Amino acid sequence: LDEIPESECWEILKRHRLGRIAVVVDGQPEIFPVNYAMSGRIVTLRTGRGTKLSNAPMSKVAFEIDEYDAATGVGWSVLVKGLAQDATESFDDVSWEARRVLPRPLAPGWREHRIAISPGEVTGRRFRSSS
Amino acid sequence: LDEIPESECWEILKRHRLGRIAVVVDGQPEIFPVNYAMSGRIVTLRTGRGTKLSNAPMSKVAFEIDEYDAATGVGWSVLVKGLAQDATESFDDVSWEARRVLPRPLAPGWREHRIAISPGEVTGRRFRSSS
Repeated sequence: LDEIPESECWEILKRHRLGRIAVVVDGQPEIFPVNYAMSGRIVTLRTGRGTKLSNAPMSKVAFEIDEYDAATGVGWSVLVKGLAQDATESFDDVSWEARRVLPRPLAPGWREHRIAISPGEVTGRRFRSSS
Repeated sequence: LDEIPESECWEILKRHRLGRIAVVVDGQPEIFPVNYAMSGRIVTLRTGRGTKLSNAPMSKVAFEIDEYDAATGVGWSVLVKGLAQDATESFDDVSWEARRVLPRPLAPGWREHRIAISPGEVTGRRFRSSS
């Protein structure tokens, strides 16, 4: 396992748009694939009502992206640990920042809410599968 | 969003081998890509010492697989919520079941421990990105 330097983790996050958020619901984590966009170092995503909106705001969440090439066995992952908030209408700095970008939702429908993840820590690693 | 019937979720889980586990560490979820294998309805994976081994056993975890075709905008995800345990050496039924399969670790190195996830609930959904 090779660590990816933090500066490169941010660049990788900016280049992609499909990731996964982990939210804890009464001690039970859940994972959802989501489209996202970076606004500076804020991970922002849109959602309708549901588990993410009910449980992410003001809670610690994880956001992860990864890629794996089955042909070469080489892959990488980047993990953001941070605090989520509902940035739909608030006037704080993070919410303003989050509203500067418009991620495309992964599923159709009215996704009127915006969730912003303020990063506490970002880490990345490359791995190569033992063949 | 279309729900995937539970029986089909199990079939999808059996056909793949790369997923992600979410583990909660002091209230903070983390997500790790892992190779896995199904033994019946037990999700089993191998790991060395580290965050997964220290925090997953006897805790609620999430295990997720997904696929997304950027060309068509069509994707799906399957989520297993369940209880993890260290199945390396224990003599309970779940550990025996878990040791019947040998998932290939995603990264090289000595992965002497085996984690088994007993499913509490499995759900799946298909989604189509709004273009």
